[in-house]
Amino acid sequence: MAADPRFYPQAGPQPLEKVLAAAGASPLQGEAAGRLFAGIAPLESAGPEHVAYLDNAKLASRLGATSAGAVILRQDMAGHLPEGCQPIVVKAPSLAFAQVARLFHPARVAQAGRHPTAIIAEDAVVASDAEIGAYAMVGGGARIGAGCILHPHAVVGAGVILGDECEIHSHASISHAVCGKGVVLHPGARVGQEGFGFVPTPDGRFVTMPQLGRVILEDAVQVGANSCIDRGALEDTVVGAGTRIDNLVQLGHNVRTGRGCVLVSQVGVSGSTTLGNYVTLAGQAGLVGHIHVGDGARVGAQAGIVNDVPAGAEVWGTPSQPVRQHLKEIATLRRMAAEYTRKKRDQG
Amino acid sequence: MAADPRFYPQAGPQPLEKVLAAAGASPLQGEAAGRLFAGIAPLESAGPEHVAYLDNAKLASRLGATSAGAVILRQDMAGHLPEGCQPIVVKAPSLAFAQVARLFHPARVAQAGRHPTAIIAEDAVVASDAEIGAYAMVGGGARIGAGCILHPHAVVGAGVILGDECEIHSHASISHAVCGKGVVLHPGARVGQEGFGFVPTPDGRFVTMPQLGRVILEDAVQVGANSCIDRGALEDTVVGAGTRIDNLVQLGHNVRTGRGCVLVSQVGVSGSTTLGNYVTLAGQAGLVGHIHVGDGARVGAQAGIVNDVPAGAEVWGTPSQPVRQHLKEIATLRRMAAEYTRKKRDQG
Amino acid sequence: MAADPRFYPQAGPQPLEKVLAAAGASPLQGEAAGRLFAGIAPLESAGPEHVAYLDNAKLASRLGATSAGAVILRQDMAGHLPEGCQPIVVKAPSLAFAQVARLFHPARVAQAGRHPTAIIAEDAVVASDAEIGAYAMVGGGARIGAGCILHPHAVVGAGVILGDECEIHSHASISHAVCGKGVVLHPGARVGQEGFGFVPTPDGRFVTMPQLGRVILEDAVQVGANSCIDRGALEDTVVGAGTRIDNLVQLGHNVRTGRGCVLVSQVGVSGSTTLGNYVTLAGQAGLVGHIHVGDGARVGAQAGIVNDVPAGAEVWGTPSQPVRQHLKEIATLRRMAAEYTRKKRDQG
Repeated sequence: MAADPRFYPQAGPQPLEKVLAAAGASPLQGEAAGRLFAGIAPLESAGPEHVAYLDNAKLASRLGATSAGAVILRQDMAGHLPEGCQPIVVKAPSLAFAQVARLFHPARVAQAGRHPTAIIAEDAVVASDAEIGAYAMVGGGARIGAGCILHPHAVVGAGVILGDECEIHSHASISHAVCGKGVVLHPGARVGQEGFGFVPTPDGRFVTMPQLGRVILEDAVQVGANSCIDRGALEDTVVGAGTRIDNLVQLGHNVRTGRGCVLVSQVGVSGSTTLGNYVTLAGQAGLVGHIHVGDGARVGAQAGIVNDVPAGAEVWGTPSQPVRQHLKEIATLRRMAAEYTRKKRDQG
Repeated sequence: MAADPRFYPQAGPQPLEKVLAAAGASPLQGEAAGRLFAGIAPLESAGPEHVAYLDNAKLASRLGATSAGAVILRQDMAGHLPEGCQPIVVKAPSLAFAQVARLFHPARVAQAGRHPTAIIAEDAVVASDAEIGAYAMVGGGARIGAGCILHPHAVVGAGVILGDECEIHSHASISHAVCGKGVVLHPGARVGQEGFGFVPTPDGRFVTMPQLGRVILEDAVQVGANSCIDRGALEDTVVGAGTRIDNLVQLGHNVRTGRGCVLVSQVGVSGSTTLGNYVTLAGQAGLVGHIHVGDGARVGAQAGIVNDVPAGAEVWGTPSQPVRQHLKEIATLRRMAAEYTRKKRDQG
Repeated sequence: MAADPRFYPQAGPQPLEKVLAAAGASPLQGEAAGRLFAGIAPLESAGPEHVAYLDNAKLASRLGATSAGAVILRQDMAGHLPEGCQPIVVKAPSLAFAQVARLFHPARVAQAGRHPTAIIAEDAVVASDAEIGAYAMVGGGARIGAGCILHPHAVVGAGVILGDECEIHSHASISHAVCGKGVVLHPGARVGQEGFGFVPTPDGRFVTMPQLGRVILEDAVQVGANSCIDRGALEDTVVGAGTRIDNLVQLGHNVRTGRGCVLVSQVGVSGSTTLGNYVTLAGQAGLVGHIHVGDGARVGAQAGIVNDVPAGAEVWGTPSQPVRQHLKEIATLRRMAAEYTRKKRDQG
């Protein structure tokens, strides 16, 4: 199935030479270079007018059955292609395909202007080419960079700074925050609200500890739908450049991540915990507060992290341990339990 | 406690004959059929003017103390009722009670019209009897079916199709999606946003893989408050007819569920995983990507599913195993640990 | 780092005598009492113009290096302060610091008025000094108490009652609910939507069980960003006075909590489960329905609670057990697995 034109208008058709250039593949000479492609499609459903891709060598046997007009792949898979199917040989097929997909479906760019229902504070500074959607709000003293898009119903609080080419989707809100370039908040994301800080009183009430820090989202950070990033208490909450945060993720106050981290859906990171660069937290993993996860560490799905994790480690379980050890231990315990049960039964 | 009239105006009183009809019970003749009931209430707090119900045979002893005017129950419980309390005998009391509750509290229907602050694209097609609330938005080319209700602040993106009698609650957003009849998005639900897909570059950045699929919500699907369903990458994300999704649930791109599935709160299903028909995922369960859960399978709360689950299986744990085996293994290991500790102490 | 004036205007400078009074410390006489302070800051980065605090006796050695002008601490730590640094001696430094922080950064109070784009039903009763933000909505028959703040895009449903000094942040929605004084809904919080109740039909469909209860939020309850509290089915969902709920938490229909509970991020409590007073549920813990957690119990992070928890208990694990026993059992099992593996290797 190709992209539904109802939702995805196509820039095309595109000649093969442009497809090759977008993919970063070697150019072709002559007539073939002018062959036209209508768009992209999955390998299984692509037709002669489509470009498909394959990045998994184990699935190379599927190539023989494709009807795609061209397939992006690595050199060692090219021999599997049926006749008439144009190989587009690259080192990293997924990356090349992402680029070719963008050729046919360019990213949405700001359509300069302010919807008449948008409410923009008089002293906010909004770039002339920014797009401010219906019912969007920009608070006092905020700065909206060039090429930003505020989708309908986005709320940007007082003093917030958005670098160039940021995109705030519908129903997302951001306050007490400073964003670099190309930051994206997906729908319903919450950035900059008060952290979960309070102090018990002698008579059994809780008094809010004023939360007076900020959220810093460095360049190209993305925050998933309905995810929450609380502002710092006295220091800042910081998300490092290029970090990708999936949906329904929670970052408590004063959390800091390094560059290029990946936080999968429903992860929770408690207050003041820090991540190094290129840390991966798989889905539903939870981290207690005030610990550190080192550069490049990988935390497994649903893992419960209660201590520091060394750089490069791969851990799983609650409390977590190195993933190989964890899997081996589970297998051993299951074997032991089965032996115990058998022995008891034999004795009984 | 009966329903608070502040929030729930009552259609009534209703005569017993109508209550019986709504319940699907046998009609009564004569004077009794005209007895009037004011509404419904829980068994414990109901008065003579209320209809209550009981569906759990183990609690039948509670029937003797009720002051309810009528009780919906199964034949074998009817003997427990006090004198003067009208039995309403059915095979499925919960279902009958749901129907009687609707008799006294009919479902809200669309009040045809468009609030003057609603923003509807010129080329959107909105049924004349649809209700479009304040500050709601309908994008270009969207189609809104007969009897749909868009609550205030609902955002329906360009090209989205809503079948008849869909209801989009406040602050919910939907884009890149096609919905059948009777689909409900509860407040803050997110449908159709970009999936979590990106590719690393050689210089350590991530490039978004364009997400060019859709979300298909079949007839009568319900999506809970603040739940998220990402659109497909190249294929579609599909939720099968009648499936009920609770609050704060995450469905990644390309997930497919069958008919009549039940996904309890805070469940997470990773990309490209598929569920058969009538699958139940209990609260906080997590499924990795690219696996299949067979028809009628039941996954326990907080379970971590890393492999296919066969049809009809009931599994629990992380990694999951059949629930009886899992419970037995936990019990066995706890016994073994206790014996080990005792032995060490005796030796020490 | 002191609070960024871009986001946090300061009420000050303040003389020491006012700082002491706010902290609840003994007053000073003479010239020192007039010493001026500009604001608060963390111990490590505070300058002579700042007030800092320390509440952890284990970190007392850090006091010697501070450049803070004054430090709030307990009597037994005061000896560690460098010369020229003013000790502010109290019994509960965190609480005192929260109060001093409020001196410099007073809580936002309602700025009486209604934004012209706010939509307020004619028969709603809104206190004259309430603040109703842009695009906020107040439904028919609702009552908004004195000093309430409805931030932009807040939606308050028909009949809802907000006591005095409630605050509803942007994109939060509340319906079918009655709130006491000082209730706070953080951005995107969902209160009062339909609970997850339905009944299967013989032909494989689900029929919604009408959800006819309410949500009662007692005085000073706070609900975190994007958290969800469903209204009761026939009874009410109740959150006890002073309870603090973090982000992305789920409370099902008919849940009841006592006073002063703390529910950390991503906790899920299933329908009809009840908590006593001062119960703590750590992050990502999950509770099945229809159980009771006693007064003062503490449930560990990610714990899966499937049975009642006695008052005062501290439990962890899935299924949970007393935390000391759980930790000991994990350690024992790990030792047993290692011994087993060693023995098998020696035998092999």
